[in-house]
Amino acid sequence: MPQSHDATALQLRSLVSEGGELELSLAKVPIPVPDDDEILVRIEATPINPSDLGLLLGPADLSTAKVTGSGDEAVVTARIPPAMMRALAGRVGQSLPVGNEGAGVVVGAGASLAAQSLMGKTVAILGGAMYAQYRTVKAADALALHDDATPRDGASCFVNPLTALGITETMRREGHTALVHTAAASNLGQMLVKICLKDGIELVNVVRSPNQVAMLKELGAKHVCDTSQPGLMDELIAALTETGATIGFDAIGGGRLAGQILSGMEVAAGRKSGGAYSRYGSTTHKQVYIYGGLDTGPTELSRGFGMYWGLGGWLLTGFLIKIGPAEAARLRQRVADELKTTFASHYTREISLAEALQPEIMAAYNKRATGEKYLINPSKGLDA
Amino acid sequence: MPQSHDATALQLRSLVSEGGELELSLAKVPIPVPDDDEILVRIEATPINPSDLGLLLGPADLSTAKVTGSGDEAVVTARIPPAMMRALAGRVGQSLPVGNEGAGVVVGAGASLAAQSLMGKTVAILGGAMYAQYRTVKAADALALHDDATPRDGASCFVNPLTALGITETMRREGHTALVHTAAASNLGQMLVKICLKDGIELVNVVRSPNQVAMLKELGAKHVCDTSQPGLMDELIAALTETGATIGFDAIGGGRLAGQILSGMEVAAGRKSGGAYSRYGSTTHKQVYIYGGLDTGPTELSRGFGMYWGLGGWLLTGFLIKIGPAEAARLRQRVADELKTTFASHYTREISLAEALQPEIMAAYNKRATGEKYLINPSKGLDA
Repeated sequence: MPQSHDATALQLRSLVSEGGELELSLAKVPIPVPDDDEILVRIEATPINPSDLGLLLGPADLSTAKVTGSGDEAVVTARIPPAMMRALAGRVGQSLPVGNEGAGVVVGAGASLAAQSLMGKTVAILGGAMYAQYRTVKAADALALHDDATPRDGASCFVNPLTALGITETMRREGHTALVHTAAASNLGQMLVKICLKDGIELVNVVRSPNQVAMLKELGAKHVCDTSQPGLMDELIAALTETGATIGFDAIGGGRLAGQILSGMEVAAGRKSGGAYSRYGSTTHKQVYIYGGLDTGPTELSRGFGMYWGLGGWLLTGFLIKIGPAEAARLRQRVADELKTTFASHYTREISLAEALQPEIMAAYNKRATGEKYLINPSKGLDA
Repeated sequence: MPQSHDATALQLRSLVSEGGELELSLAKVPIPVPDDDEILVRIEATPINPSDLGLLLGPADLSTAKVTGSGDEAVVTARIPPAMMRALAGRVGQSLPVGNEGAGVVVGAGASLAAQSLMGKTVAILGGAMYAQYRTVKAADALALHDDATPRDGASCFVNPLTALGITETMRREGHTALVHTAAASNLGQMLVKICLKDGIELVNVVRSPNQVAMLKELGAKHVCDTSQPGLMDELIAALTETGATIGFDAIGGGRLAGQILSGMEVAAGRKSGGAYSRYGSTTHKQVYIYGGLDTGPTELSRGFGMYWGLGGWLLTGFLIKIGPAEAARLRQRVADELKTTFASHYTREISLAEALQPEIMAAYNKRATGEKYLINPSKGLDA
């Protein structure tokens, strides 16, 4: 009986101790009772995104992982390198729930019409603490899926789809007409290829291997540049000249790539203007947003791209606040409408909450291999 | 007779030859005849700004400078390191006039009322080709100085004063309330200290020696951080916390300073919010604009400052276009009104056009020593 005040359910917790250990456990928490405007969702699918791993595992050294207890009582601990503890000071001693997004079935609802109308439906939800069996959210924040969609279909409705749509939307709002994307073979990158094909946007994909080039070309991508090839800059400049892309989204962050993209855009802008000399470079504004940190090393910019340029951080949350709820709802509805086509996600393996605490499985989902993604099903391995 | 079609006058020219030599000479060019809406200015004072040196000398190795001819016929040549020639491809073979700004007396005017009303006045003008004895400009673009101002007073009315005003104006327009400035002991930096004191803006000055700290404190500066001291980051964080500065203007460009400012702002923002943990850092937007390149090396960013940040180029020309002619006129009028106080410039030495081509003088003005500035007086050493 999910709505009983006494019932408890499992919620995954991540704790960094003062002594420098990461501790993952399954807490038994009361099943929450929805307020009037809320629904109670039984979560059946919640992905492990790269953006979840930071909070889940931090910089722990998984080769030191040790398990005590078993089943739902298991606790896994791992050492955190002492040099990393300073950056974690803000979370030491706090038992934190994890999981940005998920999907499941509405099994309880508050008195409001909005909440009641969702009873029994499959919904996708966002907001943290999704690695749990139950979660309440405001009815207005849930995305009702079409009737033929399962929780697995809808597990990744927000982070990747809205980031991909946020990228093309930011491009348009800032007055650009074509764009560059790095780490373009990712799940998100594949969605972006499909969105751009559908919406007629020219996209320059940057990947790091010939296999990834082939995979994106298979999806219909026209411009794919491979950082593993010596001719990268020439290839990039040619693609930037042909597309006129003057905005880029970079998931890598560290190293020289963001600056190389700005330099390439500047060369392309110079070719277009026919080459009147200016010490300050072209007057074409060139922008790169860093939205991820696959390379955590420093970003290095040669600044050989004139004075009209910008580099900045980009975060989905900030973008959604900026565009406001009506626009955000429009983007979310597009995700629901194209859930099985443009926004289809693929998972390597479905695991239970208890399995998420097994060291060999932790090592696997922490690899962040392109195209590999784990899905937690909190209802797996439990009695119905 | 300046308005005769036959009369000629001197204009300094800079040429980069295909063979890799810089060549400076004084061309004899016809004295231009003003159109209806133009005035003819006899230039009597034009500064050598850091922003002029790039076009004037390029990356030439002045230790190789050789002079042929003498007086106004002198030609000075110097070798350009072969590795630098690629970046100069756009200007090879073009004999380019130099000099961003200057001031002088209106000695000719077109038929329009606006032009005629400036006859005999001392004006400041902007737009290149100022290292010359005469220059025509549109009457509307000239800044008429107050009657007690000399051309020397008005020589540097635009680049430094408008950049300094552009900095505080950009701060306000982008929603910040206090600011950081690097290379703060420069002529421009001293103006900025005076503007901020007058306008009640909290300013964090970053300089590179104890002497410069003392000099700015003398001017009334409250926060001065010294990059030559080991406690720089602590000092910077304390000043950023106290002022709440979330925008910075960096004249240095290369190295780690721009990133250190962003990191310091992030720490200050975290202290203010009281420290609720977020992996994405604070939601305070932190911005640094690079407007100069005293260090031409790469910019290195650690990115330890969350996701709400921006770094970009800032150029006076682009700023003036963005704010439009009415706002630009308001800023220019403030320069004229405060020419002998807030915007007073100091010069190390006044030289003639011919002296600007003497190797030992070239070496002196090319040093770009803080607080040293050369002024060219094109009417110097000539018969009236």
